[in-house]
Amino acid sequence: MLLSGTVVVDASTVVEDGGVVIDGDEIIAVGQAADLADRYPDHVRRSYDVLVPGLVGAHVHSVQSLGRGIADDTALLEWLYEYVLPMEANMGPEAMEVAALLGYLELVESGVTTCIDHLSVAHADRAFEAARAVGIRGLLGKVLMDKDAPEGLREDTDAALAESERLARRYDGANGGRIRYAVTPRFALSCTEACLRGVRDLADEYGLRIHVHASENREECAAVREETGMENVEWLDEVGLTGEDCVLAHCVHTSERERGILAETGTHVVHCPSSNMKLASGVAPVETYLDRGINVALGNDGPPCNNTLDPYTEMRQASLLGKVDALDPTALPARRVFEMATANGARAAGFDRIGELREGWRADVVGLSTDLTRATPIHDLLSHLVFAAHGDDVRFTMVDGEVLYDDGEPTTVDADAVRERAAELAETVV
Amino acid sequence: MLLSGTVVVDASTVVEDGGVVIDGDEIIAVGQAADLADRYPDHVRRSYDVLVPGLVGAHVHSVQSLGRGIADDTALLEWLYEYVLPMEANMGPEAMEVAALLGYLELVESGVTTCIDHLSVAHADRAFEAARAVGIRGLLGKVLMDKDAPEGLREDTDAALAESERLARRYDGANGGRIRYAVTPRFALSCTEACLRGVRDLADEYGLRIHVHASENREECAAVREETGMENVEWLDEVGLTGEDCVLAHCVHTSERERGILAETGTHVVHCPSSNMKLASGVAPVETYLDRGINVALGNDGPPCNNTLDPYTEMRQASLLGKVDALDPTALPARRVFEMATANGARAAGFDRIGELREGWRADVVGLSTDLTRATPIHDLLSHLVFAAHGDDVRFTMVDGEVLYDDGEPTTVDADAVRERAAELAETVV
Repeated sequence: MLLSGTVVVDASTVVEDGGVVIDGDEIIAVGQAADLADRYPDHVRRSYDVLVPGLVGAHVHSVQSLGRGIADDTALLEWLYEYVLPMEANMGPEAMEVAALLGYLELVESGVTTCIDHLSVAHADRAFEAARAVGIRGLLGKVLMDKDAPEGLREDTDAALAESERLARRYDGANGGRIRYAVTPRFALSCTEACLRGVRDLADEYGLRIHVHASENREECAAVREETGMENVEWLDEVGLTGEDCVLAHCVHTSERERGILAETGTHVVHCPSSNMKLASGVAPVETYLDRGINVALGNDGPPCNNTLDPYTEMRQASLLGKVDALDPTALPARRVFEMATANGARAAGFDRIGELREGWRADVVGLSTDLTRATPIHDLLSHLVFAAHGDDVRFTMVDGEVLYDDGEPTTVDADAVRERAAELAETVV
Repeated sequence: MLLSGTVVVDASTVVEDGGVVIDGDEIIAVGQAADLADRYPDHVRRSYDVLVPGLVGAHVHSVQSLGRGIADDTALLEWLYEYVLPMEANMGPEAMEVAALLGYLELVESGVTTCIDHLSVAHADRAFEAARAVGIRGLLGKVLMDKDAPEGLREDTDAALAESERLARRYDGANGGRIRYAVTPRFALSCTEACLRGVRDLADEYGLRIHVHASENREECAAVREETGMENVEWLDEVGLTGEDCVLAHCVHTSERERGILAETGTHVVHCPSSNMKLASGVAPVETYLDRGINVALGNDGPPCNNTLDPYTEMRQASLLGKVDALDPTALPARRVFEMATANGARAAGFDRIGELREGWRADVVGLSTDLTRATPIHDLLSHLVFAAHGDDVRFTMVDGEVLYDDGEPTTVDADAVRERAAELAETVV
């Protein structure tokens, strides 16, 4: 396939009248459309206003999609223990699958090609099958909770680790490598020390990544300090949950010492600005992290705390929140945020050759329309993508050369049926 | 016309399976759709998922639309004096008209039926004609600047006031009352005392409202203090620019004494959260104002500082920013924000019988789709509208019973031609 349009190669390179040639699951050429049309005369042609690398939703909860908006205007720990965890505990296998399908559909429809997904304790197989069905690229993991969890979610430590191992053996590398397994403890407070150390052992044994919430909320940080005598990231470091294979969601509240640990260990941080705003958690020191060389990606978190998985809304939010928090309008400029949502997300997720449109890289490509009143005029394309674009502008989403969304219609699953069933199931699980 | 759908009467009243009957420019009935169908069998029927009152964009700059994204990631005063004012100075009559058309189209397409619009110094007639052509309801005014303005924008005091008077006589009450005139000094720093006092006299003489920027930025506040020896709102009060007929955009930085003045005089405040974030101006104390009984409406400000006029994006932003600023997730809940964007906006704009869907009120109605993945499920409709909906969901916009936007197409002007010409003109004026 030869896709033509203005090509956003990466956050600092734009090719006008450009094109991208796809063969199998790879990009085999990027350049001027006219030149590519001469070189690849037999490729099927498609034209979009803008072609961008698929964005990376680096911290999401697809299986919380049935709870979109269930507990708006409430605080994190109440939100979690009174609403979200009881909902997850109520979800049977079908609800888990439909919720995951709904979440992946929303991601693909809004131009996300890769996600790092925190599933739930039970029925994780169903979410993996949903990811396979939709075709999204993802680093997914069953959640571990072996303490301080409500009825129906708390597991025995060994059972939780054994189930993680079973899932990793079954799904890591599935769907032609599009699916990877992440060992996924919920957060420090919900796991015993034995569990957290077991997570590290499992990750090492199978070469898996680790995905965990950390330091989202002041009460959470205080509780960890009370239990362990350490700051949260110090504690995670102590039990082995830092390093280049670790993805920490949030990191809103960190000490100077904790930032040093994140930088030294190469731990990835995922910034979730809308969620941190809506739950009033605070503002993560994103520029401080970036300036220290910490890799910071971008995530929408879950539908109950955002309430959308649109990555364009989140890029805009990251920049605007960064500016007002620093009282500096040059903070987190468009290019930096676009890089967080693409290249940095790719590094966090651990898939190579994604997040940019380059020859030899995987064919994760998104086509957008700019034939809109709110996209007129465009003085700077990267500014447009970060400050004015929206997931609704996405017309085409491709992962590994497979078209998942085409002209308003998901191609791999029946979106109408998923939405209809999701609306029915939402009534029963909330 | 009989419109059926879930009817959002106001921020606290929702009618399931509801309907709204329009006759001429008025809503003549609101109730259950089945009952209305019996009572009004001859009315043309239309069905939407949700019907809401048209939203009020209470502080916009339609004529800055050609500069969407021209100076992203720069500070307010540099942004204003280096980019935005030079652009306005470069704009001839055609550019002014096309920019206004583009702005009004974006508003109407995203469900805004009424705007309070800060035009520019010159060629204001063209924006009034654009508002008439599109059919939007609006409180519009030519900008006054008789000091500290760049070449091409500074006017003689008497000439500026005389031109305002001419425009008021010509356009106040135009288009069947949809268009009202607001005397519109840019801000304290750009107007002499004589000009500001002349604004009050003109408003009193013709019964006009006043629309002015105030206390957006710390440097601006410091400069006013330096010049006048007073705080900004004290100064505006001193020269007559407070009261129930005055709309002050921003009010980010106010002292306790200034808040007292705003409350005592019944002055309206317009909160512009995205603009205040993007320009790093700060966070307006919205809940403090509301708790003191100050009327606070919601505005997107202009395309160079937002970069969208979508009111749904702005409602979400207002709530999220309010929560993180207060570190209180219950701050600015969905219903309060929806009220700011509807009833409070209507009070600020000074049009009666708009902002709610009630019998005997003006027929300013918007139909939205919720047949979307990101609108599935909906647990609470007001939460959905504030946290997950987007202007793209708007399918139908009606003002005074006239359909302005229908199924993706503006009906009153040729949107494609406007966009095309806007893109051309943007190259020449920036």
